[in-house]
Amino acid sequence: MQVVLSVKDMQDLASSYKRRGQKIGFVPTMGYLHEGHLSLIRIAKKMSDVCVVSIFVNPLQFGPNEDFNEYPRDLMRDKELLEKEGVDILFLPDEREMYPIDFCTFVEVEGLSDVLCGKYRPGHFRGVTTVVAKLFNIVKPDIAVFGEKDAQQAIIIKRMVRDLNFDVKIVTAPTVREEDGLAMSSRNTYLTPEQRKEAPVLYKSLLLARKLIEQGERDPEKIKKEMEKMIKENANCEIQYIEIVRKEDLKPLDRIEGEVLIALAAKFGRARLIDNITVKVNQEKGR
Amino acid sequence: MQVVLSVKDMQDLASSYKRRGQKIGFVPTMGYLHEGHLSLIRIAKKMSDVCVVSIFVNPLQFGPNEDFNEYPRDLMRDKELLEKEGVDILFLPDEREMYPIDFCTFVEVEGLSDVLCGKYRPGHFRGVTTVVAKLFNIVKPDIAVFGEKDAQQAIIIKRMVRDLNFDVKIVTAPTVREEDGLAMSSRNTYLTPEQRKEAPVLYKSLLLARKLIEQGERDPEKIKKEMEKMIKENANCEIQYIEIVRKEDLKPLDRIEGEVLIALAAKFGRARLIDNITVKVNQEKGR
Repeated sequence: MQVVLSVKDMQDLASSYKRRGQKIGFVPTMGYLHEGHLSLIRIAKKMSDVCVVSIFVNPLQFGPNEDFNEYPRDLMRDKELLEKEGVDILFLPDEREMYPIDFCTFVEVEGLSDVLCGKYRPGHFRGVTTVVAKLFNIVKPDIAVFGEKDAQQAIIIKRMVRDLNFDVKIVTAPTVREEDGLAMSSRNTYLTPEQRKEAPVLYKSLLLARKLIEQGERDPEKIKKEMEKMIKENANCEIQYIEIVRKEDLKPLDRIEGEVLIALAAKFGRARLIDNITVKVNQEKGR
Repeated sequence: MQVVLSVKDMQDLASSYKRRGQKIGFVPTMGYLHEGHLSLIRIAKKMSDVCVVSIFVNPLQFGPNEDFNEYPRDLMRDKELLEKEGVDILFLPDEREMYPIDFCTFVEVEGLSDVLCGKYRPGHFRGVTTVVAKLFNIVKPDIAVFGEKDAQQAIIIKRMVRDLNFDVKIVTAPTVREEDGLAMSSRNTYLTPEQRKEAPVLYKSLLLARKLIEQGERDPEKIKKEMEKMIKENANCEIQYIEIVRKEDLKPLDRIEGEVLIALAAKFGRARLIDNITVKVNQEKGR
């Protein structure tokens, strides 16, 4: 595995692959890799000739009171995992090169970035879209793979790619879960043993929502109330939001119909966890 | 000359040139071409293997009360001029493909976009950077050429390219002028014969500023006053601004020093004209 540190080296390398007609598959990460990341890497490898993974804890997507400094890092372990997966290039950009002192250009997907997580993390998605635009211009991927755990992020990036005409195919991959259902996340390391035991209730509440919909429930408010009840009875956490929105544009729904994203965020101490599922409901007759 | 209408065709064509190791030179325009545009095209041709010119009157960079609808258009004449210059590809994007109904992603260079012209055309430079980002992703140029008449635009685009790591070399080319000094512009067609006679005073006031600096004047306020006086005495126009700023970051100056941009905008009836010069002043001894 080749480790690339500078923007120019990465761009020149990417250009040389393109000249050879080789397809570049890309997985941008913030490191501290888990099975979720590895599942994305396996997809990228399958769909391309050269697999590039970036590790960059992007300061621009963290709020002033968020966990940028504490975010877990373990580059040695990450490198071993990437070697084992057969990744071709690890791109490790330098923060000062990515954000020079007078950096002042931002990419923003309006409308989709200020709901759900965006409401609780102002500027977060602007930081994500800006760094992903940068990384796309540096790595020049044909395909980039994102995890569905960050559903809103994936939807925003797809919109950015469409609107700004990035010639990159965005592929999303299912959330990888621990045996008890907890969505894998680098931030799970923040959980105390007690919190770790309680956290799977988030996914259980999503499964409850799916069951209620399958049983015919179409009122988002009723479903959200049941989910909230289940979480509160089983975990000592602060629910930030439980939302049921149209997947396409993240708009709230009066009634469950079409492709629906059920998403939530909750704080277990200093661990802010998110999870979501997608449910498809066929349009019903007579409506 | 090949005329390309769709985004995907242009991207595929650009990718095929890249695979062949051919350098793409690009000149984005709004059409109604004049010698200024042609000078940019000649530079692009010299520096590349394939020369692409786009013509797209970009609605996003016009304010609601600006001249989007009246902006002069003459595609037949433009095509002839481009053929004569030996342009390889004319990219003519479709407005509905460029801006689908739910388009919501914007690129903004903060700090540089709200001064000078940006102060009088809110949202203008956001429209410019957004469309140029799109065009770069579609045309995939190695080199793009911009005119120095739009000095602020060129500075903003260079910053965008640096900040978002576009792998594009930005080249700027000197303003092309009519014999009497008036900067060439598609908008000069708006001028009445009377206004056309008066308009060259804008450039004359810039030359006056240069002369004053050469004579030792270092106070921007005094220079601006002399320029204003000259314009008011010689033309019936509404001066929007006369500014003397540091070229690098467009910040106002207390004292003329270093590389300085002297820029102005004035309305002659419905024609809003801009012009500028750059003056370099060596740091003086004993300061």
